[in-house]
Amino acid sequence: MSEYKVKVVVRLKSVVLDPQGKTVLSALRNLGFSQVQDTRVSKFIEMDVKGDNPAIVKEQVEQMCSKLLANPVIEDYEIEVME
Amino acid sequence: MSEYKVKVVVRLKSVVLDPQGKTVLSALRNLGFSQVQDTRVSKFIEMDVKGDNPAIVKEQVEQMCSKLLANPVIEDYEIEVME
Repeated sequence: MSEYKVKVVVRLKSVVLDPQGKTVLSALRNLGFSQVQDTRVSKFIEMDVKGDNPAIVKEQVEQMCSKLLANPVIEDYEIEVME
Repeated sequence: MSEYKVKVVVRLKSVVLDPQGKTVLSALRNLGFSQVQDTRVSKFIEMDVKGDNPAIVKEQVEQMCSKLLANPVIEDYEIEVME
């Protein structure tokens, strides 16, 4: 059994308003960064997970996302298992 | 002038305690995911930024990080400019 580094991005769905992103955008504009067009703020979770192979680890992390890490009504997630 | 997609990860420095990550870890363990060894929770910011070339855009986003997006005392950041 080996240990894998897993990266998970939990994003608000694109149809859902992102007030934190809008606040960051207007703060950046106020600081003079007029070249910024849009910002979205998401959660980024890095984990060390033990498992037999990357496919099994990815499946388990998918369960973690749907049970705890993401709210499937308003959020999407993306999982990357590093070898 | 083109528009670039930029991804920024703002992480707590590894010497700084991550209580949110520890809470996620113990919640996952309580749900039966005993194979998880460690979790760190970070911010992930996606931006659309106008600029002449990727090097200039990266430099500008570095300024945004040091001025607003990250707290340099306790956080590190990582910037990726997509072509």
